[in-house]
Amino acid sequence: MLPALALLAPLSLLTPAARADEGMWLPEQLPDHADRLAELGLQLPVSQVADPMAAPLGAIVSLGFCSASFVSPQGLMLTNHHCVGGYLQVNSSAANNRARDGHLAADRAGELSAGPGARVTIVEQITDVTDQVVGRIGKGTPDRKRQAKVEQARKALVAACEAKPDRRCHVASYFGGAQYRLISAREIKDIRIVYAPPESVGSYGGEVDNWMWPRHSGDFAVLRAYVAPDGSSAEYSPDNVPYQPPHWLQVDPTGAQEGEMVWVAGFPGHTNRYALASQVAWTRDVYYPWAIGLADAALAILAEESAASPEAAARLASPIDMIANGRKNNQGMLDNFRTSGVVERMQAREGQLRAWVAGDPARQRQLGPALAELDTIVARDQATWQAQNVVGRLTRYSDLLWVATTAVRLAEERKKPDLQRDEGYQARDEDRIRARFERLERSLWLPSDRRLLQLMLEQAQALPADQRVASLDAWLAEQGGVGPALDRLFAAPALADTAQRLALLDQDAAALAASADPWLGLARAIEQWAAPQRLRDKERAGAWLRLAPLWMQAVQGARPGSVYPDANGSLRVTFGRVEGYSPRDGVWHLPHTTVAGMAAKAGDSPFDAPERLLQAAPRAPRSRWADPALGDVPVDFLATLDTTGGNSGSATLNAQGQLVGLIFDGNYEAMSADWLFDDALTRSIHVDVRYLLWTLEEVEQAGWLVEELGQAPR
Amino acid sequence: MLPALALLAPLSLLTPAARADEGMWLPEQLPDHADRLAELGLQLPVSQVADPMAAPLGAIVSLGFCSASFVSPQGLMLTNHHCVGGYLQVNSSAANNRARDGHLAADRAGELSAGPGARVTIVEQITDVTDQVVGRIGKGTPDRKRQAKVEQARKALVAACEAKPDRRCHVASYFGGAQYRLISAREIKDIRIVYAPPESVGSYGGEVDNWMWPRHSGDFAVLRAYVAPDGSSAEYSPDNVPYQPPHWLQVDPTGAQEGEMVWVAGFPGHTNRYALASQVAWTRDVYYPWAIGLADAALAILAEESAASPEAAARLASPIDMIANGRKNNQGMLDNFRTSGVVERMQAREGQLRAWVAGDPARQRQLGPALAELDTIVARDQATWQAQNVVGRLTRYSDLLWVATTAVRLAEERKKPDLQRDEGYQARDEDRIRARFERLERSLWLPSDRRLLQLMLEQAQALPADQRVASLDAWLAEQGGVGPALDRLFAAPALADTAQRLALLDQDAAALAASADPWLGLARAIEQWAAPQRLRDKERAGAWLRLAPLWMQAVQGARPGSVYPDANGSLRVTFGRVEGYSPRDGVWHLPHTTVAGMAAKAGDSPFDAPERLLQAAPRAPRSRWADPALGDVPVDFLATLDTTGGNSGSATLNAQGQLVGLIFDGNYEAMSADWLFDDALTRSIHVDVRYLLWTLEEVEQAGWLVEELGQAPR
Repeated sequence: MLPALALLAPLSLLTPAARADEGMWLPEQLPDHADRLAELGLQLPVSQVADPMAAPLGAIVSLGFCSASFVSPQGLMLTNHHCVGGYLQVNSSAANNRARDGHLAADRAGELSAGPGARVTIVEQITDVTDQVVGRIGKGTPDRKRQAKVEQARKALVAACEAKPDRRCHVASYFGGAQYRLISAREIKDIRIVYAPPESVGSYGGEVDNWMWPRHSGDFAVLRAYVAPDGSSAEYSPDNVPYQPPHWLQVDPTGAQEGEMVWVAGFPGHTNRYALASQVAWTRDVYYPWAIGLADAALAILAEESAASPEAAARLASPIDMIANGRKNNQGMLDNFRTSGVVERMQAREGQLRAWVAGDPARQRQLGPALAELDTIVARDQATWQAQNVVGRLTRYSDLLWVATTAVRLAEERKKPDLQRDEGYQARDEDRIRARFERLERSLWLPSDRRLLQLMLEQAQALPADQRVASLDAWLAEQGGVGPALDRLFAAPALADTAQRLALLDQDAAALAASADPWLGLARAIEQWAAPQRLRDKERAGAWLRLAPLWMQAVQGARPGSVYPDANGSLRVTFGRVEGYSPRDGVWHLPHTTVAGMAAKAGDSPFDAPERLLQAAPRAPRSRWADPALGDVPVDFLATLDTTGGNSGSATLNAQGQLVGLIFDGNYEAMSADWLFDDALTRSIHVDVRYLLWTLEEVEQAGWLVEELGQAPR
Repeated sequence: MLPALALLAPLSLLTPAARADEGMWLPEQLPDHADRLAELGLQLPVSQVADPMAAPLGAIVSLGFCSASFVSPQGLMLTNHHCVGGYLQVNSSAANNRARDGHLAADRAGELSAGPGARVTIVEQITDVTDQVVGRIGKGTPDRKRQAKVEQARKALVAACEAKPDRRCHVASYFGGAQYRLISAREIKDIRIVYAPPESVGSYGGEVDNWMWPRHSGDFAVLRAYVAPDGSSAEYSPDNVPYQPPHWLQVDPTGAQEGEMVWVAGFPGHTNRYALASQVAWTRDVYYPWAIGLADAALAILAEESAASPEAAARLASPIDMIANGRKNNQGMLDNFRTSGVVERMQAREGQLRAWVAGDPARQRQLGPALAELDTIVARDQATWQAQNVVGRLTRYSDLLWVATTAVRLAEERKKPDLQRDEGYQARDEDRIRARFERLERSLWLPSDRRLLQLMLEQAQALPADQRVASLDAWLAEQGGVGPALDRLFAAPALADTAQRLALLDQDAAALAASADPWLGLARAIEQWAAPQRLRDKERAGAWLRLAPLWMQAVQGARPGSVYPDANGSLRVTFGRVEGYSPRDGVWHLPHTTVAGMAAKAGDSPFDAPERLLQAAPRAPRSRWADPALGDVPVDFLATLDTTGGNSGSATLNAQGQLVGLIFDGNYEAMSADWLFDDALTRSIHVDVRYLLWTLEEVEQAGWLVEELGQAPR
């Protein structure tokens, strides 16, 4: 840290002192930060930046799991390469492996459908609905009833909202349920792949470089949104036309210099910034070590199976990436926790909070009991975590078991009126479920599915006595143990056939209950444990809804100033500067990497850069996209922004609101920022728009796309 | 590289542009660099800096294998911890392991003798003797005779010089034998250890951090020179008194800041800056891979034997370090050669040189034949390298075989008049040989000696047919092969006994030849091959003496400007600045490390920092030795100086000629600087004098030493 300041001292003559910028702000909170934004150099009125329906925020959209942004009046969008992996997989075959080789559409006709499940949502209205959701719930309402009322109110709001055509709506909860907003978005259903680089560019360095700096990933992709000729949203059709968005971003080809203001608007998924210290300590001491051990076991299986054939490798690449990424995240958390004393700092902060509460009798009366009850709930969670997590992974690691449990559950939910069905299993969700059942055709791999199921069934059998899943134990005993059960399940699994899998969705609960398919038997056994567990979960959620606002009241009271809600997938804004950091004494991570640095890493996989890229690299310093100060085309850069998963693909904007890059990762040294933001260490990692422009122009010879991105012809 | 420049751009507003400073200059060459020295900020007259007999150069001394400097009028000297390992070992026992634990003398009486072989030499006169050495050798003199004449002239000059009492003289050769200087030095024979830190401070990070940055080694030690009461040099005696040097350095406790001028005067040992490209390419492709393989085999043996007992570990620590250090050097060279294209750049430079020669008929006539002959000699070297290197390591890896061959060789040389004896085996060398024979008592370990000898004998048996060592083959056949030979050699080796070992030195050649000791038999077999080999080597040396001046003429002609001679153990000056570097794209190595960074690395060996150091560490930022900009006590720092082995322990001086640190290493990324200096990558690594002062004052409570170093009492 200190050497870094020393090195930056001369810089500070030119720019204001370095300062980290914690906060995933709601757009409406930005006026509170007008001074800081001015200090950073924002050139737009704060009121404009705070308006989600005006440019530039109006150009930011969601892909569901990632962010993206419009960059041309013809519906062109930029996002990360790692956000379009699924889109590429549905367009891949053994003969034409687009997931590996990427895709460049030579013209509009060459733009490939991203598949039936692909969706873009464009926020059109954000309404505070706190009063409608919790305003009329009496203080003494029992927890389970409280949860049900909130759930009902949210579903009713969503249903009314989605009565309009092409709408996708949801009610987001903020500050643990103290506030609610109804977010109404236009949904576009025909998404096409315009350009995706080869995997060896888009995720250059693969798992080795994942989360790491220096980084040289060209983690970008170009999509286009299409609508029906009449402008309405429509599923893919060759007759569809490019969507003309109300707002799109300008691209600034001068990029972002060290020290320059950058900001990001996007849809960060989940953070735990207001967790209890006891939750963090338990996560460190119990959960992460367990999750890492299990991930290692699963990865060992997947690696073995993957080595068996190129087909297995192609099908298992995505689950391996996902589990390895989670494992590296968990390990990174543990490393960060140790080096940065995260738990100790959260404990100290919580100690101050508890002292603040206890220090005033009125506060103690109002908040003290809530703190005590939260402690009790957390203790109970920590006593029953293992069964929940084992069952959760049981139906996640085995694709076929996921199909069976989803079908059984959906059939059960269908018995209820739509508004009473659980979230995720309503009529509005059925298309997505069907699309996922269909997509399994391209990723299902029975040998690994069997071994992963075996791994998790053995885990279930090793659960402690007080956490046994009795119905699963009984089913396994009936089968004669894990081995015979697996033999039966995998003898001729009907669910491996796409038609039979989809047919499940047309059967009612009675038909499924009558089925002799062993997969459905196993699913019923699990559901027998899960159904009452869900009721307990709902009761806990009701208690949490009651207590969280009090907890946040204590948080805000003990730590005055503007407080932002935890990430929840809703639109947020974070701002800061392009800046390096010191990962350890004596080392400074520079804020930019270059094409020369990318080429210097080239070699075996995962650094198997394509030949055409390496051949173009020596000319990069003389290209029009080269940075004069760096003397080369920049590849990736660091900034002090506060981001997390879900922000991937978000446009990185400059002080004029122009696009200078795409955020795609955070740094290893600050993984624990999901729990506690670290001023000195937390950095976001972005791909520089100049690397995209250079790649399109000099490597892919796709000048027409460079022009559609607003750049002059070469 | 480029990101570094970009980052430094603001710095350049304050200081002149960064520029690397190649050159190990003779002091007399410094006036050629007056402009650059002024630009760097030198505050002393260049004439003063260029005078080896004035301060500050007059305070720089040699320990033989390392440099050191006087820092008080009472003969106090500073050098590196890694330079006093041998001194500590002779003062170590199982009960009091000073090599591991270090030593702090509570008072003068507690200062420990560094042992009978320890010497300090203080340069008193440097005389150009080129004319005496080569001035009267006729052009047509045959090569062997040329070599003999040069050798004779050098020995005669040394003998005359050493006729004065307390003198140690040598004739150094520059530019491959184009110039010679007689260096006359005063020799002091009573050296004492005042302070050495524990090994876990002095070589903190051990082999893991060796050559690496960021570095946190406290690689310093404090010695004192003693003389007889009458001021003459004398071997250790309790009656001796501290030597009062004519010059000593002032210590500047404000240290060296980033960008500040620093310079080093010392005794760099060996570089190959003017090698032929074919020599470098061969070294990369043949020699280093072979040497690495052999080092790995030796290290595996030493590691196994070392694990057997604490005594073995103690005795083998030093050879393990030495071989591991050499291996890492060789591997680093290969890495550097690859990443920096050293061979390709030397080939390109030599291509220009050859074009320059060929481009002019007169030059071609004068220099062309010399180039062709050099090519022939290099080709011959490369055809016979293996036998020479195997025999070389045979007598280096086995201590007992080294004893036997040294005794046999010395007895042979003693037959001749002293001036005709080979260098290293003259009367003046006998004390040193005796001291080494004696010191073996503390390091000899028979189990590893046997296995290393076996390794090398097997290497000898695997030599290609055209490089067999016939006399060794015959001896081995006589013994019945390697196994029986080893059994006989190690049955009851007389040479393992110190008295019997020393007694060898009192026997004449005839007595040794009559001995039935199998070690002497083996030594005689080797000598039978080595003696004619030495004659061929001398002939080659004579040719080289004839050709090297022509080669240097071509080097200098093709590349005008001041040229410095290769390092040869004589006094040199190098200057530059405190500055970091970029080891790879996206990363900058900061020029200072801190006590906090040292503490953050603490853990298992080799990072087993002593408890008292770790306890003092958190208070370092508030100590009087803390750097205000860093906010902590600096540990090590980087500079752009041009140094190599032998410079270790040299005082690092500031623009006022005050001591701010001690150089102890170079960086891994620029190991190949011994062949080719790389402007962007070559850095020297120094321990900051403030770390020494802080350690003495805050960790060791040795305030009296801090005061003797010219600092105010706390």
